[in-house]
Amino acid sequence: MMPRPQMTTINRQWRLARRPSGIAKREDFEYVEASYPTTPLQDGEVVVNNYAFLCAPTIRNWMDPPGNSLYPSINLGQVIMGPASGVVVESRHPDFSPGDRVATISSWQDYAVIRPDQSMTRVLPDDHGFIEAVGVFGLNSLTGYFGIREVGAIQSGDRVLVSGAAGSAGSVAAQVAKLGGCNVVGIAGGPEKCRWLLEDCGLDAIIDYKSEDIRTRISELFPDGINVFFDNVGGEILQAAVDNMAEFGRIVLCGQITGYNDNAAPEGPRNMMRLIYGGIRMQGFLVGHFADRFDNALRDLTEWERSGRLAHREDVRSGFAAIPGAFNSLFDGSNTGTLIVNIDA
Amino acid sequence: MMPRPQMTTINRQWRLARRPSGIAKREDFEYVEASYPTTPLQDGEVVVNNYAFLCAPTIRNWMDPPGNSLYPSINLGQVIMGPASGVVVESRHPDFSPGDRVATISSWQDYAVIRPDQSMTRVLPDDHGFIEAVGVFGLNSLTGYFGIREVGAIQSGDRVLVSGAAGSAGSVAAQVAKLGGCNVVGIAGGPEKCRWLLEDCGLDAIIDYKSEDIRTRISELFPDGINVFFDNVGGEILQAAVDNMAEFGRIVLCGQITGYNDNAAPEGPRNMMRLIYGGIRMQGFLVGHFADRFDNALRDLTEWERSGRLAHREDVRSGFAAIPGAFNSLFDGSNTGTLIVNIDA
Repeated sequence: MMPRPQMTTINRQWRLARRPSGIAKREDFEYVEASYPTTPLQDGEVVVNNYAFLCAPTIRNWMDPPGNSLYPSINLGQVIMGPASGVVVESRHPDFSPGDRVATISSWQDYAVIRPDQSMTRVLPDDHGFIEAVGVFGLNSLTGYFGIREVGAIQSGDRVLVSGAAGSAGSVAAQVAKLGGCNVVGIAGGPEKCRWLLEDCGLDAIIDYKSEDIRTRISELFPDGINVFFDNVGGEILQAAVDNMAEFGRIVLCGQITGYNDNAAPEGPRNMMRLIYGGIRMQGFLVGHFADRFDNALRDLTEWERSGRLAHREDVRSGFAAIPGAFNSLFDGSNTGTLIVNIDA
Repeated sequence: MMPRPQMTTINRQWRLARRPSGIAKREDFEYVEASYPTTPLQDGEVVVNNYAFLCAPTIRNWMDPPGNSLYPSINLGQVIMGPASGVVVESRHPDFSPGDRVATISSWQDYAVIRPDQSMTRVLPDDHGFIEAVGVFGLNSLTGYFGIREVGAIQSGDRVLVSGAAGSAGSVAAQVAKLGGCNVVGIAGGPEKCRWLLEDCGLDAIIDYKSEDIRTRISELFPDGINVFFDNVGGEILQAAVDNMAEFGRIVLCGQITGYNDNAAPEGPRNMMRLIYGGIRMQGFLVGHFADRFDNALRDLTEWERSGRLAHREDVRSGFAAIPGAFNSLFDGSNTGTLIVNIDA
C-alpha cells in the first residue's frame, strides 16, 4: 500500500547561529522556515504546536558552550529550547493525545517534537489558559513556590529577603513567604516596581537598587539578620546578604542573573567562614527537581490567584519574530512581569 | 566573723597582646602570672584547673578583630580561649562539683572561670583520659563525626572527598564515612600522611596536594562526581570540588584553613550556577550546633576506637610555655595528629 500523501506546513524556527558574547544579539539567532512534519515520531514522543513561549533568563545559560555535564547546552544550529504551552498534534506517548493542551519545555518553533518524560510536560487543567500556563501558573511561578518553601524552608515569623523581587519567580517567592507568615523585604529597580511590590504584593519593605545602597539598607532592615534569602541576582547582592544572614539562615540560589551575560563565571560570595560560624546553608535548585509535586503547587497557586491573594503581571508580546528581542529585554530591567510571547498570529 | 584567709597560687596565662597579622607571632601573646583565686564566683560558674589544651585552628579566627556578630573575638588583653580538659576545683553550678573531670571551652591558663551552660562543658566518662578527652574523643573528632553524618548526610555508597584528611576532624570524617559504607578519597600533604590514611584509616584513595595536581586527580577519581565533600581547606580546593560535584551533592564547610592567616576573607567558590543546576547544597556548621547530641556520638567514637576501627594520632607537647608554638604548627602542616599541649608539668 502506498503511504498516504501528507500535507506539509511551514515550521518557523529560531535556531542558535553562534554562541552569544554578553547579551545575545540578533545575529546570534537564525530564522529558518523548515517544514512540518519531517521524520516519523519515535515511541514516547509527541509533537506540540506551540502557542505561547515563556522567556526565562536561564535560557541564556543554555546558549553557552557545553563542557559542564550539569548544564544543558544548545548545539549550534539547534532550535532554542524554552518553556511553552500549546496543543498536542501527534502522539506516540500513552498519556498524551492529539488535542491535549500542555505546558512543556519546548523550543522556539511552531511545531516541536517533545519527549514528555524528559521535559516536564503536563496537561493543563481546563480552567488554565495558554498564557496563564506559562505565566502565573508556569515554571517561573513554580520556581518561586518550591524555592521559598522547600529550599528556603520558610517558617512563620522568618525574616525573608528576595532579590529580583519584581521578577516572575521572585514576586511569587516573596508573596508565598508573606502567605506563610514571614516578614518580607524585596529588592527591585525603580519606583514603579517598588510600588507594585508594596501595594499589590503586600511586601513589608523594598530596597530600590537603582537609588539606594543595598548593603546599607539590608543592615538597616535586618538588624537581627536574614533568616531566608531568595536570590535571583548573585554577585554583590549575594555577598551583602551573606554578610547579614542570621544564625542557621538559608540562602536559596534560584538564579544569578548578574552573570548570565558575562563570559566569566559570576563571583560567588567571598567569606565561607560566615557560613561556618552561622551554620548557614546555601543551596541551589531547579524547578525540575520538584516536577513530581507540581500538581499540589498548582492547586495552591490557582487558589491564591483566583481569590486575589497572589498578584501577578504578564508582559505579553506578539508574533514569532518578537521572541529574541523579548528574551533580551529580561536583562535590562525594562520588562514588567513575566515575559511571554504569544505566536498564535 | 572574719573571712577565712585563703591561699593564693600562681595562675599562668597566655593573653592576646595584639591582633596577629598572618601567622601569629610570639609577640602577639603575652605571658602573665596572675593569681588564683581572684573574684568570687557568680551563680552558674565553675573554676576548672586545666590539664590539656586542644590546639584547634579556629582559635586563630577568634584572634581577629570583632565586627561580625557571628564570630567570637578575643579582646586584647584577654586570655586566649580554647578547648581543654581539666578538673573542677570550685563550683556554683548545680551539675558540677569539685573533683569532676570535664572537657570544656576553657582558656590558656591554669585556672579558668567557666560558664558550663555556654561552653559545651561535659563530665568525662571514667574510662576517658584527659588527653583522649581533647583528642580522639574531643571537639575535633566530634566535628568530623557530626559534619560528615549530619551536615553531609552520608548514605551508603556515596562518593566522598575529604580535604585536610590527615587532620583531626578530617581523619574522623573520612573514617566515619568509610564505616558508613562510602567510598572515600582524602586530600593530604606528603607520603607519610597519605600512607597513614590508606593503610591505617582504610581510605580508598589519596590525593597528595604536595606532589599531585588536585583538580586533575579529583576529576580522575570522581568520573561520576562527588556526592559529599567535607572541606577543611577552602580556596582552590573548594573550587575544584564544586566543579566536580554530582547532582544533589552536599558540601560540608568545616573550616577554611587556607584563609585563617590572611587578613582578607578567603575566596569562596566562583560559580554559583553549578550549585543551581546541580541542586547542590553548601552548608557550614560548628560542632556546638550539635552539643545536645554529644553523648551518642561519643558512644560511637569510643566503641570504634576501642575495637580498633578508628585510627587516631595525637601530637602531644608538654608545658605551658609550649602552647603558642604548638598552636602555630597547625598551619604549616608539620604536625601529625591532633595537637594537644599537656600542662601538667
